[in-house]
Amino acid sequence: MIGRLLLFLALLHFAVSAAAETVARIGSPGGVLSVELEIDPDGRPSYSVRRFGREVIAPSRLGFLLVDAPKLERGFRLADQSTRSFDETWEQPWGERRFVRNHYNELRARLTERSGLGRSLDLVFRLFDDGIGFRYEFPEQPNLSDVAIQDELTEFAVAPSGTAWWIPAFEWNRAEYLYNRTPVAEVGIAQTPMTVRTDDGLHIAFHEAALVDYSGMNLASVGQGRFRAALTPGTDGAKVRRPAPFPTPWRTMQIADSAGGLVMNDLILNLNEPNRLGDVSWVRPMKYVGVWWEMHLDRSTWASGPRHGATTANVRRHIDFAAENGFDGVLVEGWNVGWDGDWFGNGQDFSFTRPYPDFDLEGLAAYARARGVQLVGHHETSGFAAHYEDQMEGAFDLYERLGIRAVKTGYVADAGQAKVRGPDGLIRYVWHEGQAMNRHHVRVIEAAARRRIAVNAHEPTKDTGLRRTWPNMIAREGARGMEYSAWGNPSNPPEHEANLVFTRMLAGPMDYTPGIFSMRTRSPQGVQTTLAKQLALYVVIYSPLQMAADLLEHYEANPRPFQFIRDVPVDWSESLVLNGEVGDYVTIARKDRDGEDWYVGAVTDEEGRVLEAPLSFLTPGRRYRAQIYRDGASADYRANPADIVIEERVVTSADRLTLRLAPGGGQAIRLVALGR
Amino acid sequence: MIGRLLLFLALLHFAVSAAAETVARIGSPGGVLSVELEIDPDGRPSYSVRRFGREVIAPSRLGFLLVDAPKLERGFRLADQSTRSFDETWEQPWGERRFVRNHYNELRARLTERSGLGRSLDLVFRLFDDGIGFRYEFPEQPNLSDVAIQDELTEFAVAPSGTAWWIPAFEWNRAEYLYNRTPVAEVGIAQTPMTVRTDDGLHIAFHEAALVDYSGMNLASVGQGRFRAALTPGTDGAKVRRPAPFPTPWRTMQIADSAGGLVMNDLILNLNEPNRLGDVSWVRPMKYVGVWWEMHLDRSTWASGPRHGATTANVRRHIDFAAENGFDGVLVEGWNVGWDGDWFGNGQDFSFTRPYPDFDLEGLAAYARARGVQLVGHHETSGFAAHYEDQMEGAFDLYERLGIRAVKTGYVADAGQAKVRGPDGLIRYVWHEGQAMNRHHVRVIEAAARRRIAVNAHEPTKDTGLRRTWPNMIAREGARGMEYSAWGNPSNPPEHEANLVFTRMLAGPMDYTPGIFSMRTRSPQGVQTTLAKQLALYVVIYSPLQMAADLLEHYEANPRPFQFIRDVPVDWSESLVLNGEVGDYVTIARKDRDGEDWYVGAVTDEEGRVLEAPLSFLTPGRRYRAQIYRDGASADYRANPADIVIEERVVTSADRLTLRLAPGGGQAIRLVALGR
Repeated sequence: MIGRLLLFLALLHFAVSAAAETVARIGSPGGVLSVELEIDPDGRPSYSVRRFGREVIAPSRLGFLLVDAPKLERGFRLADQSTRSFDETWEQPWGERRFVRNHYNELRARLTERSGLGRSLDLVFRLFDDGIGFRYEFPEQPNLSDVAIQDELTEFAVAPSGTAWWIPAFEWNRAEYLYNRTPVAEVGIAQTPMTVRTDDGLHIAFHEAALVDYSGMNLASVGQGRFRAALTPGTDGAKVRRPAPFPTPWRTMQIADSAGGLVMNDLILNLNEPNRLGDVSWVRPMKYVGVWWEMHLDRSTWASGPRHGATTANVRRHIDFAAENGFDGVLVEGWNVGWDGDWFGNGQDFSFTRPYPDFDLEGLAAYARARGVQLVGHHETSGFAAHYEDQMEGAFDLYERLGIRAVKTGYVADAGQAKVRGPDGLIRYVWHEGQAMNRHHVRVIEAAARRRIAVNAHEPTKDTGLRRTWPNMIAREGARGMEYSAWGNPSNPPEHEANLVFTRMLAGPMDYTPGIFSMRTRSPQGVQTTLAKQLALYVVIYSPLQMAADLLEHYEANPRPFQFIRDVPVDWSESLVLNGEVGDYVTIARKDRDGEDWYVGAVTDEEGRVLEAPLSFLTPGRRYRAQIYRDGASADYRANPADIVIEERVVTSADRLTLRLAPGGGQAIRLVALGR
Repeated sequence: MIGRLLLFLALLHFAVSAAAETVARIGSPGGVLSVELEIDPDGRPSYSVRRFGREVIAPSRLGFLLVDAPKLERGFRLADQSTRSFDETWEQPWGERRFVRNHYNELRARLTERSGLGRSLDLVFRLFDDGIGFRYEFPEQPNLSDVAIQDELTEFAVAPSGTAWWIPAFEWNRAEYLYNRTPVAEVGIAQTPMTVRTDDGLHIAFHEAALVDYSGMNLASVGQGRFRAALTPGTDGAKVRRPAPFPTPWRTMQIADSAGGLVMNDLILNLNEPNRLGDVSWVRPMKYVGVWWEMHLDRSTWASGPRHGATTANVRRHIDFAAENGFDGVLVEGWNVGWDGDWFGNGQDFSFTRPYPDFDLEGLAAYARARGVQLVGHHETSGFAAHYEDQMEGAFDLYERLGIRAVKTGYVADAGQAKVRGPDGLIRYVWHEGQAMNRHHVRVIEAAARRRIAVNAHEPTKDTGLRRTWPNMIAREGARGMEYSAWGNPSNPPEHEANLVFTRMLAGPMDYTPGIFSMRTRSPQGVQTTLAKQLALYVVIYSPLQMAADLLEHYEANPRPFQFIRDVPVDWSESLVLNGEVGDYVTIARKDRDGEDWYVGAVTDEEGRVLEAPLSFLTPGRRYRAQIYRDGASADYRANPADIVIEERVVTSADRLTLRLAPGGGQAIRLVALGR
């Protein structure tokens, strides 16, 4: 009887803090990071993370609440554990670098309930020297065959104090925010990636990898540096519903001494499954122009009528320009029926196969093909995913027939206002990153893959590295893009890109649509960069699809700086961060995947800076012609954004460039490998 | 076309900040507080609060996400508005004070969508000089007949910086936490009431009133002092489902210069509906003893067997004690079948009508009646509300027949692990404060009322003042109670009660079960108060049910301090806070509802203090015998908790008592009105 009472008291009262016991432990291959798995006397599992022995993540909770079964959270014992080491180098079909090393130690632990239903839950930790991923796996078992997750209880207790860069979750918008920079303790509910710099200089980025058939994770502060997974709600009381067995996405922490170390980090890709599409040589990185910025400047309209942008003549002009300047694609928005009503957040009027009468789809596709250019397709759904799915197969069939190889999709609808069909067949309003929409995005990518079409999703679900598995998931938006500088108040501030590189970009490529040469727009602030910085963005913001977003006449009027956009590749064999601080500045060097040339981009925030760029990454002994596009002496994002100096010099790997960046400025350099 | 594009851009991009227009405004009766209702160019409503013209709540969002319909959040115009003033004084059947003034100005605003479905949503603000309540009302209308709320978007943007006292929401436990004291900016997800003191000394408590057939509101920090309503999840994707018309609970802000001003504040009661039970003279405040603390000390067990606490002999002894010392009730836990298995969070084995064989329910009830005492019933559900409801009517019938007039209910199950029947008849695991459980608690209270039985719910849903409407909802737990000092690690610290008074107690009475005389317990720290503080708690912690919680032998051994517990009433005609600071100390004076005597209680945290208590509240010219129970010279909650001095003196309203409180100490005073 005493035993039962004591059990009761122990179970009832979590205030009784008895020491948790470490039941398993694993270190990373180089001994940098380690994880301990602990179980307390009530059978509650937790994990903690150390780096060189110092606590980075304090003991943090694990487990689940279920909708129709007792929670999976306590009463556990460690039933089994195993470890393994893994080391491979795999090749990306396209990407920031050609070869990726995937080197980790893995701990697999089976937790089994000591009594009651006796259910099991597996925990898998993968430790790299520069990061950690862990996930749950629900094994097949009689007492938990259909899993309905009410809440995931995973926590991340950031042990040291520090600064966080983050955007809010569950707000009006989806992901199109300026970044907050606050003490970690003042974060509210954040989207991931969220990046933290501890007071002693360690950088940690929290995110997830392989978000498939599950609900997107946000991080809710539960006070004093502790965060809880806040899964995106679903169509019913369960945030996730799946039959076992299945794994959750990986919960990830990229951990590095420097800000740049977060960027040169392949954790997210490595935790995804290998390519399942087979030969994907048909997925081609490309640069494109389009009928798009003119709409954001209100020079033409998506809707039909006298100011319609997507006319045959206008698009022919763009095809000609693309062909003459070496661009692969021409994006056309507003080409299809459905833009004439109040389409924002509605979308039921869109046809994905019927062009407006003033847009000769067939003729333009043929004209483009004849000139060696392709149209980039466009499917705006307004978030009405169910409506899109009804037409999707036919829409991709049409594009396949027309030789269109990439499609930009759009989900313009407020947060919480995407629309899917519920289990009862009725339309349900849902969050863009819930399980239903994540399933939708995979259905789209697979439908596109069957036609050898790549997808560039705007207003997407977040990037969690699925491009490794589905390499036609080529790029996406998912942040505050350049269009905010066309009409936003405020427009994107000078620090925006230096925030993106160390936050959003950790998730994967972004179609940021740089290359604006004319900085006066409908926004009161206009484009808040120098011209040289616009060029640098092609190196700094990685995307296999890069738009030259400005009006064609602005390029025609400025052929010398435009040359850099003509030259810069969109596929790389190597990428290196030469320096950088979150939200302040960054310099990145990348090597052309199809040649020996290197490209360097540097951007700063509102502060002018002098940055050192050692060229030790160049092939020793080889000479390179540096084609430098730099801020002029009077350049300033406010007063004189167009002051650019273009000059050349010859350099070797022994050289060290000094990059002078104006306030809001940048610098772009092409390093042309010369004959030996 | 320009118009349409501009509309599109305005709708799409919240970054376009244009000035919101104030469309309605209302002040409190004395002009202390004012509210402005604003609508921005996108038709988004927001409200802000000023006190004496200074902003207290910055513009804060309003609205709803719905599960199966577009959100109710923008595109609104003010279709109608009206104001009214109200002033009445009503009488409580029992309470902290007999008469309550309900004096407010009301603004009623109808918001109607300018296009689309054209739905309407009413907003009602009630402004008192010491607080604000506002709620939404969903009117009857064709395009919104069945409301399925996915999320309530209400926000509270605390304009000044300050300090918050709060406990976390959505954790393991329900409400049984020690209070956090953090900067407002460092709050995570908080339960209500949450109390804030701004840096310039204003006190604001956030809570809700009249939580009926709706989901409980928590406050999620969304960063930098801004909080969003975080409704408790439900059994499906909707957090609330109701047919229109219906009102939401009131969202409340009690606002006062001093901490004590929060306590002397009837906002929550005033915003509830009047008594709907008619004559409730059968609801009787009372003091009780019980078979309870001995279980927490592990001297007996809830379960059957040789150490069973609820035996006929043990209960007879308690009945005798109660009769001899003027107590009205005897609580007995563990009397009924079901405690022998792993009942924690299960509860399916409980019978609410079958006593254990060693407990003569009928005989004891009769014995108690014969001695002028009543048994206090006990229904532990382990949170299995559906199972309890199956037996509830019969259980209350039994108690009615036995003359039992009060029942303590219990819902011991982890957070998120209460159990109700879903719409499909299957059991669903739910949060204790979701709509389903809030409905359950009203069903219980109404079933009890039909038998003239009062309910004292432990592990309850939060108190939102429903005792005004259902006066048999007499008390509840809903915070970390005294039992944590029986076995907790840590036990309740000395500041705990000084936190409770200004947080949890703002919601309503709490069955805290004070009166512990023997401070050494199973907890490593023991009871962290002096003996004098235990007496003071009977005045400081308001409850119409007050337990003398210790073992009877400890009272028998200490008759002089016990005299205060015998004397102290449980029903009051007036209550005054003489001084206090949140989490530090407080002194409260209350007047016996059935006489002319006053009682004063003062408690402090771990700091010793000297507090001044002017007696100006006494009837001028009248003499009172002050019976003082104070900390002795060497009293200290750690070293010498039992050092108590009991002394008398005669005082008048012109006197000023100087209360010396030891570390962890307190003082209790009975002021006996003498003949004139």
